[in-house]
Amino acid sequence: MAAKVDLKRFNNSWYKPGKGRIILLLWYIINALVFNSYLLPFNKVKVYLLRLFGARVGKGVVIKPKVNIKYPWKLTIGDFSWIGEEVWIDNLAEVKIADNCCVSQGAMLLTGNHDYKKATFDLMVGEIMLQSGAWVGAKSVVCPGVTLHKNAVLAVGSVCSEDLPKNAIYRGNPAVFVKERHIKQ
Amino acid sequence: MAAKVDLKRFNNSWYKPGKGRIILLLWYIINALVFNSYLLPFNKVKVYLLRLFGARVGKGVVIKPKVNIKYPWKLTIGDFSWIGEEVWIDNLAEVKIADNCCVSQGAMLLTGNHDYKKATFDLMVGEIMLQSGAWVGAKSVVCPGVTLHKNAVLAVGSVCSEDLPKNAIYRGNPAVFVKERHIKQ
Amino acid sequence: MAAKVDLKRFNNSWYKPGKGRIILLLWYIINALVFNSYLLPFNKVKVYLLRLFGARVGKGVVIKPKVNIKYPWKLTIGDFSWIGEEVWIDNLAEVKIADNCCVSQGAMLLTGNHDYKKATFDLMVGEIMLQSGAWVGAKSVVCPGVTLHKNAVLAVGSVCSEDLPKNAIYRGNPAVFVKERHIKQ
Repeated sequence: MAAKVDLKRFNNSWYKPGKGRIILLLWYIINALVFNSYLLPFNKVKVYLLRLFGARVGKGVVIKPKVNIKYPWKLTIGDFSWIGEEVWIDNLAEVKIADNCCVSQGAMLLTGNHDYKKATFDLMVGEIMLQSGAWVGAKSVVCPGVTLHKNAVLAVGSVCSEDLPKNAIYRGNPAVFVKERHIKQ
Repeated sequence: MAAKVDLKRFNNSWYKPGKGRIILLLWYIINALVFNSYLLPFNKVKVYLLRLFGARVGKGVVIKPKVNIKYPWKLTIGDFSWIGEEVWIDNLAEVKIADNCCVSQGAMLLTGNHDYKKATFDLMVGEIMLQSGAWVGAKSVVCPGVTLHKNAVLAVGSVCSEDLPKNAIYRGNPAVFVKERHIKQ
Repeated sequence: MAAKVDLKRFNNSWYKPGKGRIILLLWYIINALVFNSYLLPFNKVKVYLLRLFGARVGKGVVIKPKVNIKYPWKLTIGDFSWIGEEVWIDNLAEVKIADNCCVSQGAMLLTGNHDYKKATFDLMVGEIMLQSGAWVGAKSVVCPGVTLHKNAVLAVGSVCSEDLPKNAIYRGNPAVFVKERHIKQ
């Protein structure tokens, strides 16, 4: 006989955010006031704060207003990469953004999932990697465990739950291959 | 000859929010300050306020930050159900969430629609029901009048405008059947 | 040999927002405080401010809370048109909304794009036009350069990157034709 979902038995005590309560609280406040807001629209301030909280952030990084970041100490952003307005980096697991990537406005990098086959609905997390030159389009969603290989493009409003190959343009939900990306000087 | 849309003649005076102006204003303020914000991230405070404004809320309910709720008096949430960050419960009509449901981050429960066949673009509303164990994935949208039957899953970023059968996993826009959900202990 | 994306060489100096720094800063603040917020939910105040900053706004226009508008001087809204809650008008290029249009809650009008074929990822912008009676559904996205012809409907959660013909209802990502819209008195 089929079991029933029982969220009372949900137990994510195995999951470690990676920092203590004080740091978690401080980041919660800074994320609310400085990142997920219109206050202080200055890249330097934001990059400084991200590094202060353990993020690896390169040079020339652009971070627009209203960005929501779960845990900066689980975040890497390479040189000259852009984080657009209202981007949501929900990084329970590591999110690694390489150089020259663009995460456009309203996009979501989602690292958390649940095991829907278990009555206890166990938390599952998966790292996201955006290799150099990758572009996550506006209002699109990258699912847990996914890698966008070099120069891959996820088109606007799309959802990908599988890796995108190098130079591939994907679109839709689930996102499917549309065409090859050829980059000229 | 085809008629033209005329929103000047739009008339939703038949629709009753269910409370007077003072209560509507008070909830507008509380929703803005306490629910759709990072302030007071305490489940007990939120559950207390929801009940104070007429919601039926069970025990063990989790309500994350930045949740947007239209009318709490048209809301039921069962035991041990979760409302994720940035969930939008746009409940012009009743929204009934049973026990052990999960509404993931960024999802929307949409109860309002318009009659696009009428020049007056009449408002139409439809109740939403999530039966026990149902899971509305991150950034997905449940349309007016839809029921997610027991343990049904709407995958991330999907849009459903028809009922989801028991134990069915749906994905896409419009969401289509993907596979059966089998739950083990 | 394929070139690599080089955002250090990104150059959008050709793009003119259309106003000087003081006006840009003032609008940034007003958009944050009055439009993309719950404060001052009064259509008259919002329409007044939009016109003050150069928007052409007709009579009977409704603007709900949490609306995000990039540049009001690049915005036209006709008589009796509605801008829903959390609508994002990202108008780097002109957005022209005719009479009796409805842009539903959570929808996005996106005018900016990038040339993914160039190493320099050049900014490209495209005007959006909603002809009279058009309806942009909740949580849907209209891409740069798109026109919704008279009475066209983009269904909830859909993404359109091509023009929608007159009286056509489109759905999905990419949005495809679903059926004809017939409007009765």
